[in-house]
Amino acid sequence: MRMIDLIVKKRDAQTLTTEELAFIVNGYTDGSIPDYQMAAWLMAGYLNGFSAKETANLTLLMAQSGNQMNLSKINGIKVDKHSTGGVGDKTTLIVGPIAAACGVPIAKMSGRGLGHTGGTADKLESIPGYQIVMGMQDFLKQIQQIGIALVSQTDNLAPADKKIYALRDVIGTVESIPLIAASIMSKKIAAGADAILLDVKVGNGAFMQTLQQAQELANTMVQIGEKVGRKTMALLTNMDIPLGNAIGNQLEVIESIEILKGRGNKNLMEICLVLASYMLYLADKGSLEICKKLAQQAIEDGSAFEKLRQVVIAQGGDVSYIDDPKKFQQAPIIVPYTAKKEGYISKIDTKKCGIACCILGAGRERKEDIIDEKAGMVLQKNYGDYVKQGETIAVLHTSKQQTLNPAIDLLDDAFLFSECPPEKQILIYRS
Amino acid sequence: MRMIDLIVKKRDAQTLTTEELAFIVNGYTDGSIPDYQMAAWLMAGYLNGFSAKETANLTLLMAQSGNQMNLSKINGIKVDKHSTGGVGDKTTLIVGPIAAACGVPIAKMSGRGLGHTGGTADKLESIPGYQIVMGMQDFLKQIQQIGIALVSQTDNLAPADKKIYALRDVIGTVESIPLIAASIMSKKIAAGADAILLDVKVGNGAFMQTLQQAQELANTMVQIGEKVGRKTMALLTNMDIPLGNAIGNQLEVIESIEILKGRGNKNLMEICLVLASYMLYLADKGSLEICKKLAQQAIEDGSAFEKLRQVVIAQGGDVSYIDDPKKFQQAPIIVPYTAKKEGYISKIDTKKCGIACCILGAGRERKEDIIDEKAGMVLQKNYGDYVKQGETIAVLHTSKQQTLNPAIDLLDDAFLFSECPPEKQILIYRS
Repeated sequence: MRMIDLIVKKRDAQTLTTEELAFIVNGYTDGSIPDYQMAAWLMAGYLNGFSAKETANLTLLMAQSGNQMNLSKINGIKVDKHSTGGVGDKTTLIVGPIAAACGVPIAKMSGRGLGHTGGTADKLESIPGYQIVMGMQDFLKQIQQIGIALVSQTDNLAPADKKIYALRDVIGTVESIPLIAASIMSKKIAAGADAILLDVKVGNGAFMQTLQQAQELANTMVQIGEKVGRKTMALLTNMDIPLGNAIGNQLEVIESIEILKGRGNKNLMEICLVLASYMLYLADKGSLEICKKLAQQAIEDGSAFEKLRQVVIAQGGDVSYIDDPKKFQQAPIIVPYTAKKEGYISKIDTKKCGIACCILGAGRERKEDIIDEKAGMVLQKNYGDYVKQGETIAVLHTSKQQTLNPAIDLLDDAFLFSECPPEKQILIYRS
Repeated sequence: MRMIDLIVKKRDAQTLTTEELAFIVNGYTDGSIPDYQMAAWLMAGYLNGFSAKETANLTLLMAQSGNQMNLSKINGIKVDKHSTGGVGDKTTLIVGPIAAACGVPIAKMSGRGLGHTGGTADKLESIPGYQIVMGMQDFLKQIQQIGIALVSQTDNLAPADKKIYALRDVIGTVESIPLIAASIMSKKIAAGADAILLDVKVGNGAFMQTLQQAQELANTMVQIGEKVGRKTMALLTNMDIPLGNAIGNQLEVIESIEILKGRGNKNLMEICLVLASYMLYLADKGSLEICKKLAQQAIEDGSAFEKLRQVVIAQGGDVSYIDDPKKFQQAPIIVPYTAKKEGYISKIDTKKCGIACCILGAGRERKEDIIDEKAGMVLQKNYGDYVKQGETIAVLHTSKQQTLNPAIDLLDDAFLFSECPPEKQILIYRS
C-alpha cells in the first residue's frame, strides 16, 4: 500500500477501506508517513468529506493508537462526559461529584485550556496540592474506593489524534465535522467508559457557531459512539452567554463550590443538573425525571459537595480551601470593569470575554505558555441585567497591570446594551 | 500575512491576490513555508481550482524565482518549443536544426527523461563528447555564431517550480491543469524566448489521456503566454502511437539523423515539418504554407542536417558519429521481439512501450537512476502494419540479459492485433 494512492483516492472523493485507514493512522503515528502527505490527505478529506463508516473507523483507529484504559475492574456503568469547549465551563467540577455521589463511577481525564477556552485540568490544579497526574493503578484504586478520580489526560491517550490535531491546526483543516468528531470520540473511546455524554456548545464563544453545525457534530459523534458499541448521548447547550459568572481557573473552582453548596448562578445550576441527570440516565439510574431529582438531592443533602472534598483529599489537595474558599489567595490586582453605557445587557460576546481573561493571565495563547491560576474575571451583571453607566459589570483579577487596558478594550466590544430587556436565552437547545 | 490564512482562503474556493501568491511562491522557495502547509494549499487548489489570473500570476512568480535568461543580445525572434512528454519524441533534435537553418535563433534548454517519457538532454548526451551544460556567455555566443544551442536546463531556472513539482509528485496533485500549465510555462518564460510553440501530446503514452484534457491544458498555457506577453501557440499531437520507430537515447539520435537526411518514418517526418513550420510562422517567416515549404527545403538541401553537425561540433561532440551513425557502439544484447499472433497491429500501448524501454535501461524510474544510452527498441512494424506469427515487431537493445523477460512481458500487453486494417491515426488533432 502506498500513501500517494490513498491521497489520490480521497482526492477523487472515494471511500477508504478499514485497512487503508489503518495504514494512514498507524503510518502517520509511527512517522513513516510524512507531514506533507498527511496534510494533502487531510485537506482532500476536509473538502471531499468522509462517510459515516470512514469516520467511525478513523476514530477507532485513533483510539487504538495508544493506551486504552481498561475500566472493567470497576463495578457499575462508567459514564464519561465531554464538553466541546466553552468560556467559564466548570461543569465537570460539579457534575462529576454529583454523579459520583449518586453511585456512578467517574473516571474522568480532562484536557488543558487553549485560546479562549479553559480546561478542567488547569482549574483543578489551582487547588493547592492537587495532583492532576496519577498512575493507572492508583487511578483505578481511587475510583474503587471513592467512586471518582479527576485527572489529566495521559500522554499516550490516542497519540494519533494528538499528532493529527497538531497538523490540522496549522493547515486549515480544523473546522471539519468528521475530523472534530473523530478527534473527540477517539479520546473518549480510549478512556474506556461504557457510556458517553456529549455537551456540544453552540454560540459566539464555542467552536460551533450555529445550531446546524452543532447538530451535525452531535449526530456524527453519537453515530460513532453507537458504531463502536458505546452508549452515547449529546446535548446542545448555549455558549452565547458565559457559563456562570466566573471565568478563570481558581475563580471557577470557587464558583463550583458555591453551586455544589446549592447557591450561585441559576443558569449554571440548571445546566449542571441537566448534565448530571443525563449521566445518571446513561448509568441506568431511572428516567430522566428521576435522575434529575437524584442530582438535586445530591446537592441538597451535601453528598455531592462531600464527594468533591473526597476527591481533593484523595488527590493530595488541601481540603481546607474547599471548606473555606476565602483561603484562596487572590490576585494582587483586582479592579472593577464598569459600564460605559446604560441599558439592558443584550449581547455578550463570550469569545471576547474568554480572550480578555486569557490576556489577564487565565489562559494560554500557545501550548507552552504558563497560566496565572488567580487571573480572570467575575461577572456582577449578566445577560438581561439592567446596568447604569459606571456600574460594575465584572471584577477583573490579574497579576500584571499592563494586561488591564487591552483586556478592558476587548470587554468594551464584548457587551452590547439595549433600552428594552432582551429575549431570554435558551440554555439547552436540544436534549 | 500568514500561510494558514491563505490555505483557508483557497480551501474556501476564494481567489488569491498577486501579493498573496507571491508570499506563497517566495516563502516556499526560501523555505519559510514548510512542505506540509504547501501540500495542504496545493490540494485545496487542486480541488477548488485556480482562476486564469491566478494561474498566470503563479506562473510568472515561479518564472521569477530564479535566473531569467536575457536573450536580447541575439537578433531576431527567438522561438522556443516544448513538448509535454511522450514516447520516442525526438522532435527537438530535428526541428531545432530545421528552424535554425531557416534563420530562427534557437536557444533551447531541455529536460531529462523520467518514467516512461524520454528527455532531449539525455538523447544529446549519447553523442560522444557532446557537452550538454554550458555557461551563459558561451550559450549566447554560440547562438550568435551558428544560430542554435541545445543545452540542459540550468539548476536555477524556475527553482520554485522544481520544488513545487517535487512536492506535487508525492502528494497526488500532479494532474491539475492549471498547475501543469504553470509548471511548463514558468520554465519557458524564464528561458527568455519571444515566442513559444507548445506540442501537447494526447493519448495512451501522454500525460493528457483525452483530447478534452489536452485542449484545456493547451488553452491554459496559451492564455498564460498571452497574459505575460509571449506569442504562444499550441498543437495537439497523437501519442497513441510512438513517435517514429526508435525509442531510447542513442537509437533516437540515429533516427533523427535519418529524418534530417530526408528518410525514415513518415509520421515522424510529417510531425517535424508541421512543428518546424509553426516555429517559423511564430518567427514571422511567412504564412504557414510558406513556412512548411521552407522547412521541407531545409531538409532537402541538407542545411538542416548541416545545422545539426554545427551544433554537435560547437558543443564538443564527435561529428563523425553524425556523419556515420554506424559508428555508434551498439548495446551488447540485441534480440528481436516477435509477434505472438497474426494480424494487423490495431493498438499500441505507447506507455507500456516506454516502460519496457525504461526496464531495458533507456530510462529512469527515479531521478537519481543512471541510464544506459544504448538501450531501447526499434520498431520494425508499426500501427496498421500486418504481421505474421513469429515475425519481428521490434528489435530490443539492452546491456542486461535479465531485463529482457520483464520487458517482453510488457510488450506482449502493449500490442493488439485485428483481422481487418485499423482506422488511420490522426497525427495532429488541432493546429
